[in-house]
Amino acid sequence: MDNCLPTRPTPTPTEGYDLAIELARMTIKKTQADPAVRERLRPDYAENADSLISVSAVVATHFATIAAAKGYWRG
Amino acid sequence: MDNCLPTRPTPTPTEGYDLAIELARMTIKKTQADPAVRERLRPDYAENADSLISVSAVVATHFATIAAAKGYWRG
Amino acid sequence: MDNCLPTRPTPTPTEGYDLAIELARMTIKKTQADPAVRERLRPDYAENADSLISVSAVVATHFATIAAAKGYWRG
Amino acid sequence: MDNCLPTRPTPTPTEGYDLAIELARMTIKKTQADPAVRERLRPDYAENADSLISVSAVVATHFATIAAAKGYWRG
Amino acid sequence: MDNCLPTRPTPTPTEGYDLAIELARMTIKKTQADPAVRERLRPDYAENADSLISVSAVVATHFATIAAAKGYWRG
Amino acid sequence: MDNCLPTRPTPTPTEGYDLAIELARMTIKKTQADPAVRERLRPDYAENADSLISVSAVVATHFATIAAAKGYWRG
Repeated sequence: MDNCLPTRPTPTPTEGYDLAIELARMTIKKTQADPAVRERLRPDYAENADSLISVSAVVATHFATIAAAKGYWRG
Repeated sequence: MDNCLPTRPTPTPTEGYDLAIELARMTIKKTQADPAVRERLRPDYAENADSLISVSAVVATHFATIAAAKGYWRG
Repeated sequence: MDNCLPTRPTPTPTEGYDLAIELARMTIKKTQADPAVRERLRPDYAENADSLISVSAVVATHFATIAAAKGYWRG
Repeated sequence: MDNCLPTRPTPTPTEGYDLAIELARMTIKKTQADPAVRERLRPDYAENADSLISVSAVVATHFATIAAAKGYWRG
Repeated sequence: MDNCLPTRPTPTPTEGYDLAIELARMTIKKTQADPAVRERLRPDYAENADSLISVSAVVATHFATIAAAKGYWRG
Repeated sequence: MDNCLPTRPTPTPTEGYDLAIELARMTIKKTQADPAVRERLRPDYAENADSLISVSAVVATHFATIAAAKGYWRG
């Protein structure tokens, strides 16, 4: 993604979900710009149930934004 | 679900709720791709009250998205 | 509720609030299917202020969904 | 409030905010029905900064519901 | 603010943001009415990164309410 | 940003995302006005996975506000 978000809508819920994950990660990259530190922190959340649930919560908020924009599952 | 979301609306609140749970789990699967690690983490949240409440919070956000799209309980 | 959600709208805010509580609990039941474990975990949240506040947060999200659908307090 | 929510809209933001606080408390009362336990837990959150912030988060979600219904600060 | 919210819309995003901060603080004041206790708790959150992030989350929810009402950044 | 928010809409999702980050930071600056303390706290969240996820959650809420206003990814 290279810190740059797409301007066109994502056509399917699965692609929208992937965009939501990218949106969640983008804050991490912008707040902790050092990739070595991010890599070092990875097991802290990827092997921790509560951290994974917290990541899921952030993705849920972004997915809500995309789903409302694109109208997933409407009508 | 196989990491692929449905494109058709879910007809009932109960089915929508199940989709919300799948949406919540999808981040976990995509962030921690190793099923053995996920299995090992399971008791960490399934036997922990606060973790279960956190999972419920994520599902609530996804259910809001689906309920708004499908119009559950409207009119 | 028996893991099955109503399809008709709840007529009053009080009934909608009760539905929101059921929606919050439904994830717990589906994630931790063993009633004995759930019973054992009960004091962990029912006698813990922070856990009770977290439950209240989940209910607030579900109540928002129901209130928007049903139009509580509008006009 | 006696576990029963009003059906009429609250006319001002200040009254709506008070209703939001009641909505947040209602889950606590319904999850922990014993007033003696609730009283005992009170210092755990009323004298703890993080718990107070968490209560404030729940109230914010409920206030959003009421403000959207009543149209506070619109137009 | 004196525990009383304005009834007129805030004209700019900056003023709306200040109102969001007041809305977040109002729950603290109403839940912990003793100003001496609140003062004593202040370093617990003002010098703690996670607490400051939590305060920011509450303000974000209130700001969403105000921005939607007032139509900040629309069209 | 200087504690003053823009009044014009941000034209692209990437610029909107940057505004969301500024909105998240603004509460920190207003709650902890001392830049030396904020600087001292920085490693507490920038080198902590759970804190970074929490920051990401706040940004997600602000981004939802901006995306809805600006209509990112619509139609």
